[in-house]
Amino acid sequence: MIEKNIIGLERSALGSKYIQGFDPAAMQTLPGAFPVATEVEVHLAMQKAWSAWKSYRHLSGQKKGAFLRAIAEEIENLGPELIHRAMAESGLPEGRLLGERGRTCGQLRLFASVVEEGSWVEAVIDTAQPDRTPAPKPDIRKMLDAVGPVVVFTASNFPLAFSTAGGDTASALAAGCPVIVKAHESHPGTHALVAEAIQKAAQNTGMPDGVFSSLYGSGFWLGETLVKHPLTRAVAFTGSHQGGKALFDLAIQREEPIPVFAEMGSINPIFLLPEKIRLHTETLASQIAGSVNLGAGQFCTNPGLLVCIDKDYTPGFVEALKAGFAAQTLQTMLNPGIHRNFSAGKDQMLQKPGIQIEFADAGAETALTASPTIASVSGTEFLKNPDMQQEIFGPFSLLVRCSDRRELEQVAESLNGQLTATIMGLPEELPEYASLAQTLREKSGRLVFNGVPTGVEVCPAMHHGGPYPATTDSRFTSVGTGAIKRFVRPVAFQDCPEILLPNALQDKNPLGIWRMRDGVWTR
Amino acid sequence: MIEKNIIGLERSALGSKYIQGFDPAAMQTLPGAFPVATEVEVHLAMQKAWSAWKSYRHLSGQKKGAFLRAIAEEIENLGPELIHRAMAESGLPEGRLLGERGRTCGQLRLFASVVEEGSWVEAVIDTAQPDRTPAPKPDIRKMLDAVGPVVVFTASNFPLAFSTAGGDTASALAAGCPVIVKAHESHPGTHALVAEAIQKAAQNTGMPDGVFSSLYGSGFWLGETLVKHPLTRAVAFTGSHQGGKALFDLAIQREEPIPVFAEMGSINPIFLLPEKIRLHTETLASQIAGSVNLGAGQFCTNPGLLVCIDKDYTPGFVEALKAGFAAQTLQTMLNPGIHRNFSAGKDQMLQKPGIQIEFADAGAETALTASPTIASVSGTEFLKNPDMQQEIFGPFSLLVRCSDRRELEQVAESLNGQLTATIMGLPEELPEYASLAQTLREKSGRLVFNGVPTGVEVCPAMHHGGPYPATTDSRFTSVGTGAIKRFVRPVAFQDCPEILLPNALQDKNPLGIWRMRDGVWTR
Repeated sequence: MIEKNIIGLERSALGSKYIQGFDPAAMQTLPGAFPVATEVEVHLAMQKAWSAWKSYRHLSGQKKGAFLRAIAEEIENLGPELIHRAMAESGLPEGRLLGERGRTCGQLRLFASVVEEGSWVEAVIDTAQPDRTPAPKPDIRKMLDAVGPVVVFTASNFPLAFSTAGGDTASALAAGCPVIVKAHESHPGTHALVAEAIQKAAQNTGMPDGVFSSLYGSGFWLGETLVKHPLTRAVAFTGSHQGGKALFDLAIQREEPIPVFAEMGSINPIFLLPEKIRLHTETLASQIAGSVNLGAGQFCTNPGLLVCIDKDYTPGFVEALKAGFAAQTLQTMLNPGIHRNFSAGKDQMLQKPGIQIEFADAGAETALTASPTIASVSGTEFLKNPDMQQEIFGPFSLLVRCSDRRELEQVAESLNGQLTATIMGLPEELPEYASLAQTLREKSGRLVFNGVPTGVEVCPAMHHGGPYPATTDSRFTSVGTGAIKRFVRPVAFQDCPEILLPNALQDKNPLGIWRMRDGVWTR
Repeated sequence: MIEKNIIGLERSALGSKYIQGFDPAAMQTLPGAFPVATEVEVHLAMQKAWSAWKSYRHLSGQKKGAFLRAIAEEIENLGPELIHRAMAESGLPEGRLLGERGRTCGQLRLFASVVEEGSWVEAVIDTAQPDRTPAPKPDIRKMLDAVGPVVVFTASNFPLAFSTAGGDTASALAAGCPVIVKAHESHPGTHALVAEAIQKAAQNTGMPDGVFSSLYGSGFWLGETLVKHPLTRAVAFTGSHQGGKALFDLAIQREEPIPVFAEMGSINPIFLLPEKIRLHTETLASQIAGSVNLGAGQFCTNPGLLVCIDKDYTPGFVEALKAGFAAQTLQTMLNPGIHRNFSAGKDQMLQKPGIQIEFADAGAETALTASPTIASVSGTEFLKNPDMQQEIFGPFSLLVRCSDRRELEQVAESLNGQLTATIMGLPEELPEYASLAQTLREKSGRLVFNGVPTGVEVCPAMHHGGPYPATTDSRFTSVGTGAIKRFVRPVAFQDCPEILLPNALQDKNPLGIWRMRDGVWTR
């Protein structure tokens, strides 16, 4: 484990401050001291990234793909050392981290295949019409082009898949953008191992010096400095609303504003239709309890809101929910700060008018154990108190008991922007709720039917985004192949000689990619 | 000509303040008094737009297409009255306005054909894999969805094509978003005629009340109120840097930030390579003079910067440029404010160190005649004075004489973000300048070879955008079919029953559109 900042192909420790890992289950500091980056190191990393961009963006899809595949391989080569360190730093169980490593390497290889195939650049060609009247039509061709250095903020809750070599890094590198990662203070050792794997992969596949750098920080200074740096071209972030909004505000107040793709979580409402509750009481309740408690509730897609029409089935469903939660295995939260915020958030929520506790597990096994909690409130009270929509990061969910279908639809209308919204209903009753589905489509980035929102499939059709405040830019996804679109912009070429055209736009289509030529998709 | 605000299917004049048109050639006020909108009217227009969105967004491509085509027809039905009023309010000649009307109606019909065809929603379908291990893969489908009411700011320099029924309005309506237009103070009468045509088309094609509204304003209040209104979902603007940046700042400081697509112009550098100047002296000079003087230089793509390597051919080329400018017809500017800013901008520029006047036509024909001016400066001075990159809106261009090729490349590297960048060179010399082309590709939205940047083709491959400060969002275009992408965001559907899926995503592809299904484009 290299205890240094990584700056391109070099390693660096100029500062005199260090951070250390912390085991939240054992409540003890872990070995290793990681040097907090200095201003000089930040500037050097950015300068190198800028220079690297000039050549890296022009590398072939094959070369970028080889780099991404090499990263995946180097991460796998780390073997159990990586898994054990990540377990120690996150409190997450081995199975989860093995799965997360699989997802991380899978994402890297998926983006490799995207750039190897090449059609992602969205080439559009409109050929010339020299004889058109009144004016001849020039030849115009456009494609997507890498924007420049991307700063990636790692997430606390996915030490691998949304972290150093996670989806943000993979998609930015695939797009042709060098990446500068700010290591997460909660898992510096996990970061050190993965960052070294990326550096090794860059070296072995002959990437330009500066295509990847990674820096340790403590507090807000490093993040602020990276976002404000004039050579930074885009920022990717997954985390809290407070953190994401702060970075967004910094980025747009720059002399040259830059985009921030902040995925800031949401309460991911699940609407439970009457017949579904009545006929599938136990399975539904246990499915929901499992989703709320998954990963100690530390998911951006964690369902923090359940909405139903209050009927004779409600008491039975609440009992089933309690049983479902009682059957859950308690888990340790990621770090003391998150545990503190979870407790404080719950306490605040439980003091709001009309809130009733339905289930609260008090059986803490360690100091940082997350105790799942379910509360309930009437639809009327919920509609009167918009702050009941506050996300409580952890295994907490609020059941809103609506007096009738009209109130249920009002609750849907009252919602802030969400990453996901879910409807649980029998096939027979779903069509009646078409207007609910339309409302939730307006409010969310992904509309789920009869499934839980946790578990975000990595595929071309995925959209992991949603209207503000779920994200700062609802037009882009941070999961799935579409994530590459965050780090590019179109460039058009007018009457460009073939010899100066990028391969993707040359007449004979040497890359064999899908292109829209004079209005028709061809390959 | 209806002298009222248009609010959905109603007309309204609640206020007591009025604006009037002004003829910049005759320097006199025009008939007609147009009521400045009040807060009540703004709110009503926004409320109606919001309600209209709920149904309008779900209309078929055929219905939206019929609306757009009806607008084009109603505009054509206005006949010479529209052309004459636009001439009077803008000082632009008849031929230009006839052409602009053609472009406006052509754009409306182009967007009609885009939505009628339907593939623009970018449908992506990943079918389920129930047997996948370790977890089954759900069915995920995504498409683009209209974001909601769009506020359109009209441009001074295109009273038709970038105005009331211009590209912003056409693309937003095509996307499924209601539009609220702020009329331009410089051409209220032209606006009144076109707005009435849109209202008529909405009525005749049975569009929901509120799909289109238009309001008159004076000063900043109306624009600010529209951008800050909580129901506004996006803003489109073409105009000055000052205006666009002010709207951007308002929009991002909202409680819920919204995107502003501000196209704020640039200086559109033309790089003149040695052999091209030497061998095509006269034709090159006359082509450039024509482009700089086109529409009195009042184009966002007006070439305000010419860059060459200073050699023995320079004096001859400058002479040819002077002759080219002397041959131009002088034109009246759009309004007194623009004329004032043009004069002041020139005066300031001419006082900067090392700036030399090469040509200045003093022969004013009317009070607002634009006098074309060419100045020159050394590459060294230009590199020392970044404020020489300031846009001077009007027929002004600065010739930068570089000592050698290295300095020319440095000038390219020093440039701010541009809408366009152009290289004029012989086929034999272009390949040597591949690195210049790369630099300009990084700096601009459209790279032109041996043509002038003025004249922006309306087609799928067009990208009319560019890095800040040319626009506030370089990822989107305001010209061409891609402009529709500004007003949508993706929404994913997970395991959605066929009956609740939008047509575009249904299994049997009832719309017959291009879709990516399990990684393959099919129709």
